[in-house]
Amino acid sequence: MDKERIKVVLDTNIFVNPDSRIILGETPQQALNNFLELLSKKNNIKCFMPPSIYEELTKFIDTQAISKIILINRKPPSKYEINIPSLLFYEFVEEMRNRINKGLRVGEKYVHKALLSDKEEELIKSLREEYRLALREGIIDSKEDVDLLILAKELSAYLATSDNGLIFWADKLGISCISTQELKTIIE
Amino acid sequence: MDKERIKVVLDTNIFVNPDSRIILGETPQQALNNFLELLSKKNNIKCFMPPSIYEELTKFIDTQAISKIILINRKPPSKYEINIPSLLFYEFVEEMRNRINKGLRVGEKYVHKALLSDKEEELIKSLREEYRLALREGIIDSKEDVDLLILAKELSAYLATSDNGLIFWADKLGISCISTQELKTIIE
Repeated sequence: MDKERIKVVLDTNIFVNPDSRIILGETPQQALNNFLELLSKKNNIKCFMPPSIYEELTKFIDTQAISKIILINRKPPSKYEINIPSLLFYEFVEEMRNRINKGLRVGEKYVHKALLSDKEEELIKSLREEYRLALREGIIDSKEDVDLLILAKELSAYLATSDNGLIFWADKLGISCISTQELKTIIE
Repeated sequence: MDKERIKVVLDTNIFVNPDSRIILGETPQQALNNFLELLSKKNNIKCFMPPSIYEELTKFIDTQAISKIILINRKPPSKYEINIPSLLFYEFVEEMRNRINKGLRVGEKYVHKALLSDKEEELIKSLREEYRLALREGIIDSKEDVDLLILAKELSAYLATSDNGLIFWADKLGISCISTQELKTIIE
């Protein structure tokens, strides 16, 4: 890691996930506050967030109460300019196809179960959970996710995230991912 | 349309779909044969098919029995070289997200139905049909689809297809699509 100039794109989960925030602070608010205090002493690290992710962050954290919030550059990716290799699109389409098939199997399984049961609420709850796992877990499934990937690509930045789907697809795009622990190490 | 030099990437459905093949011939075999007879008289039109699509075609047509089959250039797209705008990836991820949600609603609907019914076979059949419509209709859902798009993009070719999903996404990539009727017009 080049100690001279480092760019980092930050995902919300760095401050919000129970697993990762304990490293920076006990609550999301404290985690972000502590992070920015450390960051303000570093001249060689620049942090970025796409506006969509910043928006997400404000659902968990009162960012207006954090004076150093300005240290996070809110930069949208240049989505009209940045290109991605078509191979990534191939792989994504293939991945989605497999997952769509899995989703149908989940649906079929719960129709079978429902024929032998009357526990509607329980069935629907489990169906939703299994379907989510089959179709969403470990995949890019929102424009916020794409924002993080494309911004990290555009800036040749590190991507700080604990999201497995993002880590998987960042790897294909040549983006280095760092964990909360690693992020803490570089700003200390 | 430039009459001097035309490149066309051909989809299987041009020869196989009942609606479109009637324009070229009564059976897929005749349709392809008639097409190639007309094509052989044209010097300004070059036709291409990705190998994956050609493979698909051989399931419907005995291509070895067609002497002029060589007129169709089997060219794979340069998938490691061609880039696509990241905006397309955004739009695809958003589209899939909406469809994944729709797929879950379909699953839930059939769990409700199954709780009040014992017609398993009927339910599963309808579930599959509705799920397929929700998740697959009008979308790119196979590497063959991506092959057609990326090859047409790479060659700056027309894409001859009747697939609504392909037409929709080709439009975003600046690829001109032509129907079987239009294809016939230009080779006559």
